[in-house]
Amino acid sequence: MPLFSAVTVEQVKSLLKKHLEGFKPETECVDLISAYNRVLAEDIFSPEDIPGFNRSTVDGFAVKAVDTFGGSEAMPALLTLVGEIGMGERPNIKLSSGEAAKIPTGGMLPEGSDAVVMLEYTQLLDDVTLCVERPVAPGENVVAAGEDMKKGEIVFRRGHTLRPQDLGALAALGIWEVRVAKPPVISVISTGNEVKPPDQSIRLGEVRDINTYSICGQVKKWGGVPLPLGIVKDDFQELSDAVKSAVEKSDAVLLSGGSSVGSRDHTVKVIESLGKPGVLAHGLSVKPGKPTVVAVVGGTPIIGLPGHPVSAMVIFEIIARPMISMMLGRDEDYGSAKIFARMSRNVASAAGRQDYIRVKLERRGEEVWAVPVLGKSGLISTMVESCGLAHIPPHKQGVAQGEMVEVELY
Amino acid sequence: MPLFSAVTVEQVKSLLKKHLEGFKPETECVDLISAYNRVLAEDIFSPEDIPGFNRSTVDGFAVKAVDTFGGSEAMPALLTLVGEIGMGERPNIKLSSGEAAKIPTGGMLPEGSDAVVMLEYTQLLDDVTLCVERPVAPGENVVAAGEDMKKGEIVFRRGHTLRPQDLGALAALGIWEVRVAKPPVISVISTGNEVKPPDQSIRLGEVRDINTYSICGQVKKWGGVPLPLGIVKDDFQELSDAVKSAVEKSDAVLLSGGSSVGSRDHTVKVIESLGKPGVLAHGLSVKPGKPTVVAVVGGTPIIGLPGHPVSAMVIFEIIARPMISMMLGRDEDYGSAKIFARMSRNVASAAGRQDYIRVKLERRGEEVWAVPVLGKSGLISTMVESCGLAHIPPHKQGVAQGEMVEVELY
Repeated sequence: MPLFSAVTVEQVKSLLKKHLEGFKPETECVDLISAYNRVLAEDIFSPEDIPGFNRSTVDGFAVKAVDTFGGSEAMPALLTLVGEIGMGERPNIKLSSGEAAKIPTGGMLPEGSDAVVMLEYTQLLDDVTLCVERPVAPGENVVAAGEDMKKGEIVFRRGHTLRPQDLGALAALGIWEVRVAKPPVISVISTGNEVKPPDQSIRLGEVRDINTYSICGQVKKWGGVPLPLGIVKDDFQELSDAVKSAVEKSDAVLLSGGSSVGSRDHTVKVIESLGKPGVLAHGLSVKPGKPTVVAVVGGTPIIGLPGHPVSAMVIFEIIARPMISMMLGRDEDYGSAKIFARMSRNVASAAGRQDYIRVKLERRGEEVWAVPVLGKSGLISTMVESCGLAHIPPHKQGVAQGEMVEVELY
Repeated sequence: MPLFSAVTVEQVKSLLKKHLEGFKPETECVDLISAYNRVLAEDIFSPEDIPGFNRSTVDGFAVKAVDTFGGSEAMPALLTLVGEIGMGERPNIKLSSGEAAKIPTGGMLPEGSDAVVMLEYTQLLDDVTLCVERPVAPGENVVAAGEDMKKGEIVFRRGHTLRPQDLGALAALGIWEVRVAKPPVISVISTGNEVKPPDQSIRLGEVRDINTYSICGQVKKWGGVPLPLGIVKDDFQELSDAVKSAVEKSDAVLLSGGSSVGSRDHTVKVIESLGKPGVLAHGLSVKPGKPTVVAVVGGTPIIGLPGHPVSAMVIFEIIARPMISMMLGRDEDYGSAKIFARMSRNVASAAGRQDYIRVKLERRGEEVWAVPVLGKSGLISTMVESCGLAHIPPHKQGVAQGEMVEVELY
């Protein structure tokens, strides 16, 4: 059994990354509005200058800036009004020295003009004589052709997750559909003889399946499609059948439970029996989350999460979330929202181990403090009460009260 | 025309809130996994103690803690093994003084026991004699009945947006479907004679519709269902027909464009013609975003966003986003992710005006710095490059280099 025990999170992530290098997500073309929060599967270049012409940003008069220099309320610059530019029109006016043309916000500047004077700094003496009471600089109140995006420039790279403003930028470029990655399908299996689905009544000694729901929620949150496959008994054959079927149906498999010694062994044996390369890591130097199994079978990642609901969620965040991002072709750190906060109390940690402490955040003046939410890793309520995980890196043996820690927000 | 010019953002939000007080979202029952990121339409109380029994958090031996006091490797406490508890079983053992029972992680503690000794701190001398080499405190390695959630306790309030851990907590309670708010349908209309959809070729002087796409993206991001209704010309009758139809089809209407003086007037006149109470505010003391119109017609909010893509997005964030949250029954500040950062340069601002500066964030040591992304509010690329808005409140006339500012992250 080629069992390699990777001890650190970084080692495990880089092993997973190596095995996922060949993974190419399927792609599909979607319209812009459907593309919100999807991951680009192509680089996007600007096919043209945006805007395509010099555009006024105010209602006013297009002018040659030099003609307004020195103009003031007491002694306005006098210009000759030669016409009006309609919205969406290509102007048939060409400005000469001393001339102005009325222009609306968004209107195209006529040839010869290089700035726009705002309406409120002008007065019309008669139908053709315009007083300009304030000078403008060249380019003032104008968006120049290509100022927003330049023809040929790369606007978004493959792997970029599209935000609302990105949809707007794509529309500006005349792009109305884009090729995006299809979300990976992630099987979610809970294991344990004592575990029952939430719609069944339970007897004393039994517990309800928490992990299927919190983990499917995490899969949705991070861009995967969860495929909940229910609860499997602590039995080699049942687990083997379930994992085999999951590998066929999905792009990755998340198992949880099997936190007792016997069932952890089942998980490892089942994975080893299914194919190569098999188990990459068994046991992580992380608290909570030590009893984690990371494996790949024929290109499909299988992660055995711990059974305790908090540990399962923490290991999801540090291993499965980057895995989903890798499968979508985006940066593995995508969506990581880290802030610095001061720890509200001393917290001990073993050297060589990453500790993740559930914390609430409190604002004290302009500072943010992280207040640990105490409780065992079997208590899902501690995840409900907290809003992030404070990280104590392996080289530290704890954090003192008032010390800065990095908090990864949920 | 009862035109009330509310000048501040806070005034406008409280006006909107007053008019939305009677708004009750429609609700629906959904299964737990579909409930991810939905807003609860009911309070959730714990129907029972979770866990329902004292539960071991480790593999080991259930004991009376007092029997282990003083035990060490050199001089272990000797206990009599009286049985083994199976996973998911209600034990038929009752421990007396000096007795122990084998128990798996997640197993139910037998009557008479109050702690669990981990397997690794024990040795079996023979089939019935257990050496305990380390004492345990009462409650050690045990989750007590009701320790996670107590019967009758409120777990989530109406208006709470369900996160992955919340789905897990609901499952633990034996709840497999919940009543959630239906997302409000938000009409999105762009206006302007020069505005063309992104799938049409444009002539010089025309521009493509950006706002429909960025705003529909924002609506999706914040929990609404966008209903894009296309582009309407700057014409009273066309706009009136479009808004009337939008009010019938949706729960709120977002118009954008009409940033030139003439078309702003159209928007206001159209809204006033449609019914009471009409326009609540016209003109906001915000940069960018001054030409904003906020109205309610027969219970339906209508927001006239500025035409510039950046201004439209900023006003969406500060007015429409809280509006959608109010309509969903959740806290109006939901999803607001604010951090403090140091401003990288001096920025001026007018007193009495809220300024929102697009910024990139840079980490410098343990500090975060906000670097303004310069550019006119017509440039969607400035939203693409930035990752948040630094806020200069109305009582300040600017921010000095190195000063702390609050940054709302996108």
